[in-house]
Amino acid sequence: MAQNIYDDPAFFAGYAGLERSRAGLEGAPEWPRLRVADLGCGYGWFCRWAREAGAASVLGLDLSERMLERARGATQDAAITYRRTDLEALDLPAAGIDLAYSSLAFHYVAAFQPMLAAIRRGLVPGGRLVFSVEHPVFTAPRHQAWRREEDGRMTWPLDGYLAEGPRETEWFVPGVLKRHRMLATTLNDLLAAGFALDRIEEFGPSEAQVAARPEWAKERERPIFLLVSARAS
Amino acid sequence: MAQNIYDDPAFFAGYAGLERSRAGLEGAPEWPRLRVADLGCGYGWFCRWAREAGAASVLGLDLSERMLERARGATQDAAITYRRTDLEALDLPAAGIDLAYSSLAFHYVAAFQPMLAAIRRGLVPGGRLVFSVEHPVFTAPRHQAWRREEDGRMTWPLDGYLAEGPRETEWFVPGVLKRHRMLATTLNDLLAAGFALDRIEEFGPSEAQVAARPEWAKERERPIFLLVSARAS
Repeated sequence: MAQNIYDDPAFFAGYAGLERSRAGLEGAPEWPRLRVADLGCGYGWFCRWAREAGAASVLGLDLSERMLERARGATQDAAITYRRTDLEALDLPAAGIDLAYSSLAFHYVAAFQPMLAAIRRGLVPGGRLVFSVEHPVFTAPRHQAWRREEDGRMTWPLDGYLAEGPRETEWFVPGVLKRHRMLATTLNDLLAAGFALDRIEEFGPSEAQVAARPEWAKERERPIFLLVSARAS
Repeated sequence: MAQNIYDDPAFFAGYAGLERSRAGLEGAPEWPRLRVADLGCGYGWFCRWAREAGAASVLGLDLSERMLERARGATQDAAITYRRTDLEALDLPAAGIDLAYSSLAFHYVAAFQPMLAAIRRGLVPGGRLVFSVEHPVFTAPRHQAWRREEDGRMTWPLDGYLAEGPRETEWFVPGVLKRHRMLATTLNDLLAAGFALDRIEEFGPSEAQVAARPEWAKERERPIFLLVSARAS
């Protein structure tokens, strides 16, 4: 087990006196220098949160003018910049970003490797790329639907996993075009683009979440989201 | 595109004259120093191949006395050592291994993290761990079986993915006990044990392989094996 010096009373007393212990992020001098980019920012929730948490500047990129309109309308903050951008033709100032973030946008991107190369160029050395996508087990099937088995179990009929490429699905409207990539492809493309992998998560609700929301039980049968934390190496 | 200097005639002529170009691995002075361990060596095929390819020494570990008997009976090579070992209680000489290899054995191991820590200690800095396991999409279901859909498609009814733990399956005999681990758990345990990830593969047959063996077609619907190359960092 690692040393737990934080439970040493003298250590804890000293630590409690640090400026960042008393003032939170406002007392952490490195935090107000953090430059953030949100790739596929939608309504801009994350951009505003990052600024509220003290980031120095936030760049919100999205392809949807309607989304950007909503995002711009929700803030007066001059340190947040919204820009219409196709992630497949991404261009960022070289080494100008400390944290690139993206929530559930990359599975719309066909040209994944050029985008990763652009992100890598845009990050400072050691900068982070943290993103979520729909899990490939979720995007793979030709027909995305649960099945109730005769014994009552819910199964997710998986097929097409190795056949990477477009998937047309219905979400509010028909014709929503997503890109199925194997999990290995996502990770190997990151490695090839000059990222080191720090952590991978396959999200489904916890047992405690299912206890609170029993209708989520089937969501533990297969992962729905893939989350990755990578570092510009 | 990377430079392809190998197609430069003068470069190629020079390269063709190198000792390792003429003598193969016998002309590569670092290769006869390679110390290899095979974790779950079975009949010892990989151990013998590694020696034939010039590795200095090979350690073959397996829990099965019958497997080790077969492996020992198949070689007279004093540089191959076979030893009965439970991977859940693995102990290797510190920094004595350059390459740890394992084929389809780790999914029998419940105590995965302690085993990885032992491998990490046993590897030289920069040493490699290369292994395959049954893919978690394959190990997860409570009933592992294909289904033929009404339209003729073959699907793999996935469930239980988030419920890590033992899976009792039938393979030659009933009661074969495997351990289901999410893909993210396998990778995060490697990172936590001090490995960097170099490459991940999710194996299924290629389209060319399916053309030659049409009965393999369904094996492209879901991955069957996970292959990982990691580096002691």
